[in-house]
Amino acid sequence: MNDDRPIGVFDSGVGGLTVLAALQRRLPQESTLYLGDTARVPYGTRSAETVVRYAKNNVRTLVSVSDVKIVVVACNTVSAVALPALTQELRVPVVGVIDAGARAALAATRGGTIAVLGTAGTVRSGAYPRTLAALGHTGHVVTLACPLFVPLAEEGWTHGDIPERVAKKYLAQLPNDVDTVVLGCTHYPLLHDAIRSVLPAGTAIVDGGAATAEHVARVIAARTASMAAQHRLLVTDAPEQMVQLAPAFLGRPIARSDVDLVDVQMTA
Amino acid sequence: MNDDRPIGVFDSGVGGLTVLAALQRRLPQESTLYLGDTARVPYGTRSAETVVRYAKNNVRTLVSVSDVKIVVVACNTVSAVALPALTQELRVPVVGVIDAGARAALAATRGGTIAVLGTAGTVRSGAYPRTLAALGHTGHVVTLACPLFVPLAEEGWTHGDIPERVAKKYLAQLPNDVDTVVLGCTHYPLLHDAIRSVLPAGTAIVDGGAATAEHVARVIAARTASMAAQHRLLVTDAPEQMVQLAPAFLGRPIARSDVDLVDVQMTA
Repeated sequence: MNDDRPIGVFDSGVGGLTVLAALQRRLPQESTLYLGDTARVPYGTRSAETVVRYAKNNVRTLVSVSDVKIVVVACNTVSAVALPALTQELRVPVVGVIDAGARAALAATRGGTIAVLGTAGTVRSGAYPRTLAALGHTGHVVTLACPLFVPLAEEGWTHGDIPERVAKKYLAQLPNDVDTVVLGCTHYPLLHDAIRSVLPAGTAIVDGGAATAEHVARVIAARTASMAAQHRLLVTDAPEQMVQLAPAFLGRPIARSDVDLVDVQMTA
Repeated sequence: MNDDRPIGVFDSGVGGLTVLAALQRRLPQESTLYLGDTARVPYGTRSAETVVRYAKNNVRTLVSVSDVKIVVVACNTVSAVALPALTQELRVPVVGVIDAGARAALAATRGGTIAVLGTAGTVRSGAYPRTLAALGHTGHVVTLACPLFVPLAEEGWTHGDIPERVAKKYLAQLPNDVDTVVLGCTHYPLLHDAIRSVLPAGTAIVDGGAATAEHVARVIAARTASMAAQHRLLVTDAPEQMVQLAPAFLGRPIARSDVDLVDVQMTA
């Protein structure tokens, strides 16, 4: 039976577009509805309580705009703290990026150390080590904050000398036995090539967005097959900025008419 | 007559410590009270209305902790939008970094273009060109956002290859007739040497913090002469992070006991 309802995706800003792109690559027949809460980005500096409140606002906005069949939390900060609250809130499945990324890392590692790269907030949260442990992993895990990666990605300085030197300086801090590197921030896939260039050959690089798309494909496999996929982008502030930044994250140009400005529903 | 009351300084986070350092160098006999609103940093992404509200919260907190004789707004975002509201709120003088930086740029330029480097938010606000025009400047002004400078400063990557290449890439966008460069963000003085290394010899570099300290010295000159200067630092979140970051900004080590955690007074 066909289920034309879109996949709902939200993030604090534009970074989640890499997850959206992975979903569109893995599930080209599916429609999508993306919400970037650009009015309140970044979430990494907010309290857990505030992040949960914002996440609830966002899913209510998604659901009010369209009858989504699944919600993908394309934000590491929200995935770390708000999944239980969102699952309770919604009658459709909720999928976060951390669980999918952790599972993909477990599938990739050959017994060496797993290194998770992320924002300072994600590293501080301990969400990846906690999730890996919950999945039964007993090996070494290190986390490494790479604060320059997000502004590099947003500047579009993703290839060449500067990002490679920055990546080299960060990754020099990793222990020698790392065999798997998790891109634990939605911006980092844009720097994949620079990161790859400074890692020993054979190191696995896990993109949480791609892993999330695989997971979503499994969850909705039985029920789905839209006819003509449609893709909508919503932001809560500065649509022009989304138009400007999105192509690098999505891997294709978008028009101003692809982006709508919405109010998040603030009622608790 | 002696006036032992401290100079009150506030910023959205740690960046204003460069202004505090300039004040302590220029006025070593003066006591200071610094408030970093680290719980709500960054302000650059907030609406003007919210920034004004936060600024009022902050000055009320400063005044409730100590009877300050002057308030220095060591934050470009706040200086751009909240000075009139703060001046109305307080009975002591209020000094912002933008006016002082603009005056120093006017004193330094020899008729060429003035280039103001700042965050995307400061550039978007147009505050420097507006202030320069209001001061009677009729020459060219260009503004340039340098989003990588803040994370470079906070990472402590302030000298050597990476910051110099980043500075070179940004400053290559400036026109050839620039004779004065304004460091229009409180973090940027940490990158002074990297910025200097890629500018033509003879280009003036204006540090808004140093200019602000000069201005404060003039305002309080007639009334002041403390005996034993004391320096207190307040934050609204994460005091350990302040202890870790402050030495690079202040140019001297600080102890955990130098930093107090406070609640900002949230009443409108």
